[in-house]
Amino acid sequence: MQINIPSISNSLEDKVRRKLNVNGALGILEDIAIQFANIQHTLSPEINRPTVVIFSGDHGIAEEGVSFYPQSVTYQMLYNYMHEGAAINVFAKQHQLQFQVVDTGVAHHFPNHFNIINKKLGYGTNNYRLQSAMSRKQCLKGITNGFEIIEQLHKTGCNTVIFGEKGIGNTSSATLLLSILEDIPLRECVGRGTGLNSSNTNKKYHILKACLQRYQYKKHDPIDVLTQFGGFEIVTLVGAMLKAAQLQMCIIIDGFIITSALLAASKINKKVIDYCLFAHQSNEKAHKKMLQLLNAKPILDIGMRLGEGTGAAVCYPIIKNAVTLLNTH
Amino acid sequence: MQINIPSISNSLEDKVRRKLNVNGALGILEDIAIQFANIQHTLSPEINRPTVVIFSGDHGIAEEGVSFYPQSVTYQMLYNYMHEGAAINVFAKQHQLQFQVVDTGVAHHFPNHFNIINKKLGYGTNNYRLQSAMSRKQCLKGITNGFEIIEQLHKTGCNTVIFGEKGIGNTSSATLLLSILEDIPLRECVGRGTGLNSSNTNKKYHILKACLQRYQYKKHDPIDVLTQFGGFEIVTLVGAMLKAAQLQMCIIIDGFIITSALLAASKINKKVIDYCLFAHQSNEKAHKKMLQLLNAKPILDIGMRLGEGTGAAVCYPIIKNAVTLLNTH
Repeated sequence: MQINIPSISNSLEDKVRRKLNVNGALGILEDIAIQFANIQHTLSPEINRPTVVIFSGDHGIAEEGVSFYPQSVTYQMLYNYMHEGAAINVFAKQHQLQFQVVDTGVAHHFPNHFNIINKKLGYGTNNYRLQSAMSRKQCLKGITNGFEIIEQLHKTGCNTVIFGEKGIGNTSSATLLLSILEDIPLRECVGRGTGLNSSNTNKKYHILKACLQRYQYKKHDPIDVLTQFGGFEIVTLVGAMLKAAQLQMCIIIDGFIITSALLAASKINKKVIDYCLFAHQSNEKAHKKMLQLLNAKPILDIGMRLGEGTGAAVCYPIIKNAVTLLNTH
Repeated sequence: MQINIPSISNSLEDKVRRKLNVNGALGILEDIAIQFANIQHTLSPEINRPTVVIFSGDHGIAEEGVSFYPQSVTYQMLYNYMHEGAAINVFAKQHQLQFQVVDTGVAHHFPNHFNIINKKLGYGTNNYRLQSAMSRKQCLKGITNGFEIIEQLHKTGCNTVIFGEKGIGNTSSATLLLSILEDIPLRECVGRGTGLNSSNTNKKYHILKACLQRYQYKKHDPIDVLTQFGGFEIVTLVGAMLKAAQLQMCIIIDGFIITSALLAASKINKKVIDYCLFAHQSNEKAHKKMLQLLNAKPILDIGMRLGEGTGAAVCYPIIKNAVTLLNTH
């Protein structure tokens, strides 16, 4: 798996600061403006058709009881998105963000009239306590699907994308990806997900430990790690991120799951990181560690851990503030 | 000086959390929703005609060289606001905030056709290294002016106000207010303002120390402290904040200067704090200490120190996210 990503500019920082002319008084907003300028190779960058894309999929591991919620919540939440009843709908509407939902492998058949992009790799992954989450072929297909989704989106004129996710059990995948890809003891990577108490978090640790023990490590092959422990939404996200970077789009990174997909993508081509803004530090324990490994400076730290792109959507106006200001001077 | 402020509700937290039904996953957004509910005594609070009000005034102390910029920048920035060329204009426009500028005592005569609210107490304060910044009568008049400005604003239907400020030299006033009102060594309160280097910050410390030595402490009389060391914009802000709280409006607190006015206002009636949301922790050193003294949990910490309400304006969409979400469920 190889994908070329162009280099961003590294020569515009001083020019952006001179253009903003506020002597550092805008803090992180100046960093954001610099990064947009570098990505777009111009002192007048633009945000066009910013879009939230939610990647959803189900996880076989959910049957082990690693999540606070039952698996059916995944598809129920997709109905909720379609009826504009979720937090992400509220935030996307408030900030005039385009909104897309991709079914990468939810264990449910959605009515055709629903405006969901169908990129199904299956009806939930396998339980990776017992076997690989998916086949290598499915994993590569997911990455290719991610390419296609972003190519289509880019054709609409979108140059800024917020990735969100929904998949009951997917913090388990993210936890394992972090532990394996970065060689960090599992205990430090396991967190509460969306609502476990400490006793259940400990149970989750022991389940994931058993999963790791099944696995013959090929930790330097990210495709193999994703095949073993990924989710359908995560592998599709990996492809989407790589393609977005190749197309020089700005990627706004949300929380733990999305960052785990970026971590995996960065093992395929680390230049993908240069196209990312990190919206927030989530309240999921190991997200901080993940961000540090990526040298990322999150914009917000407001205790969110809802997923579905909400942290990135809440952060979006700050990013827009920075880019708009650069174009006002 | 006495002003009655009604108590906010203290019984809605559980109901708000049940209504949001996200198990704590929205972090600070839940706290914001709770506070709005408590202020408005309802589970369906609203933000109506949110307005940025910039209070501007000049400071005699500026002639001592406590600021990076010359005094004339104050009135030049007001021209900039009128021509919609400042950062706060960009942010207010992006977030559809009403916008007002009050001249509380800039050392400049503005053309009548400018849409500036004229509440002039003078053409800059006295240099408080040599004498009181203003008379007690001017101080009380400033507070009354603040009452009037907010009464007018409230009549337009506004229930949420962002206070900003502009006044070259006003971090010196804020520094002295913090040191005197909270009995904190001056050295811990002095910072770089909008751009001093460390050598000039040290010079600022010695100037302010000389000012304090002139003063016969009546630190338990906030009106006296404001008279001696306040700015015209600060005393007007004190009145505006107290009136806003009395009228049960939500106050979005910006950075160091605005927080110093709140600190002074809280010495007149501490209930004013209950009506405040704290937008950000500024990069001015002593702001963190000020926020701690007020038991405040700032929403953002993004290194801003520009003043003019920009930190609060950048934070505003997050506050709106929280309130909107509470009304969606």
